[in-house]
Amino acid sequence: MQSSKNKIYIYGRHALMEALEHAPRAVRKVFLSPEANRDAELRALIAKRQVPVEMLKGHDAGRMVGEETPHQGIIGIADPASLTVGFAPFLKSLPIADSTMLVLLDELTDPHNVGAIIRSAAAFGAAGVLIPSHNQAPITGAVVKASAGMVFRVPIVELGNVNQAVDQLKKEGFKTYGLAMHGSKILADEPFDSPALIIVGNEGKGIRQKTLERCDVALRIPMDARAESLNASVSAAVVLYGWYSKKN
Amino acid sequence: MQSSKNKIYIYGRHALMEALEHAPRAVRKVFLSPEANRDAELRALIAKRQVPVEMLKGHDAGRMVGEETPHQGIIGIADPASLTVGFAPFLKSLPIADSTMLVLLDELTDPHNVGAIIRSAAAFGAAGVLIPSHNQAPITGAVVKASAGMVFRVPIVELGNVNQAVDQLKKEGFKTYGLAMHGSKILADEPFDSPALIIVGNEGKGIRQKTLERCDVALRIPMDARAESLNASVSAAVVLYGWYSKKN
Repeated sequence: MQSSKNKIYIYGRHALMEALEHAPRAVRKVFLSPEANRDAELRALIAKRQVPVEMLKGHDAGRMVGEETPHQGIIGIADPASLTVGFAPFLKSLPIADSTMLVLLDELTDPHNVGAIIRSAAAFGAAGVLIPSHNQAPITGAVVKASAGMVFRVPIVELGNVNQAVDQLKKEGFKTYGLAMHGSKILADEPFDSPALIIVGNEGKGIRQKTLERCDVALRIPMDARAESLNASVSAAVVLYGWYSKKN
Repeated sequence: MQSSKNKIYIYGRHALMEALEHAPRAVRKVFLSPEANRDAELRALIAKRQVPVEMLKGHDAGRMVGEETPHQGIIGIADPASLTVGFAPFLKSLPIADSTMLVLLDELTDPHNVGAIIRSAAAFGAAGVLIPSHNQAPITGAVVKASAGMVFRVPIVELGNVNQAVDQLKKEGFKTYGLAMHGSKILADEPFDSPALIIVGNEGKGIRQKTLERCDVALRIPMDARAESLNASVSAAVVLYGWYSKKN
């Protein structure tokens, strides 16, 4: 188990350093193996952030993150609520320009996909990643890991209601793009000349009908006939790259 | 355990159907749960390919592919050697044109990345995926699964010596591209006007020096300053998309 409603486990040196650097208030406590405890750079950052440290004992790590998880003897306990921001305060503080791009995950279930998309969103300049609070893989230790710590750098925005959020963003001038296998517009043909909301659908079912209907453009990634589809995190990355390469 | 030197386990309906459809000689035997055994379409294809069937009993599936692997009561035993082709026969039968593209994996270690890249390679029109026989995640059940069965559709070419293969392909007119974080050429600026060999490096260390020296072009994917890198399978997909979108 890597999470519960009240806490998530951040494991591995890179992920914990990212958390301490960019989201220090989220980290409540750190457990270190005797070996990790000799890591001067890590210890200095923990001390600077005034986070309490305990020693990892026996099977503690296995109990917390699972025996086969590559934790490197470094596990932090974080408060998931402090890793996300509500939609209303996020939108209020968001400067909106033609170069503003947001990613919305519509009920993705695989934490590796969620983490990988957050990583790509950060790499390709998203101003935030919007995730529904229901029927969606939440931010867990596995998501943090797959994001290479980028969950601490790009705002993660929790949505109570996806379609209301889409409607509100459209009112704010966002053009909404749905990623769809049979989309009518080829990615390369889209100029991306407005603030952009890019919606990524569920791994198996794609974007839900009510949400797809709200999309201004259904984008398609052209591909060879022998392939039926791309992995969800791969197709998201290709579209985000498509957006970024028009902007930079 | 999902593989050994002599056999790999192909699990899940989609992967096994792909194998029976496109690489039937590789499948030696199929195990079915009583429920899966009532799947008429699957049974018909197994019968057509004359593959022997046994019933899955008790903990057989867990022992073969692991308790937590989503096998759907459908497990095939395949011969890994019959899923790959040697470099010499592959090259001999390969029609080479400016639109020919090959992908070379240089010592990738994560089976999910290997499978995901094979899936993207198939989607974006690669004529083959070259994998070294040493220091590289081999074709296992996990790779098959992550490839969404595309290992059975795109030729997987086993290389005894990576650098010799690169040299030989260069003699055949291939331009070689290395994917590198500090590459000198931006992806969008490359015209891809020759047969192309795209080299993807190890997840942590990138492309080995001796191989990178052989690259005609070191390609870079431009990205935001806050991100340090992309996931290996994501960056491979973006470059393959970049190639495909220049060709189609």
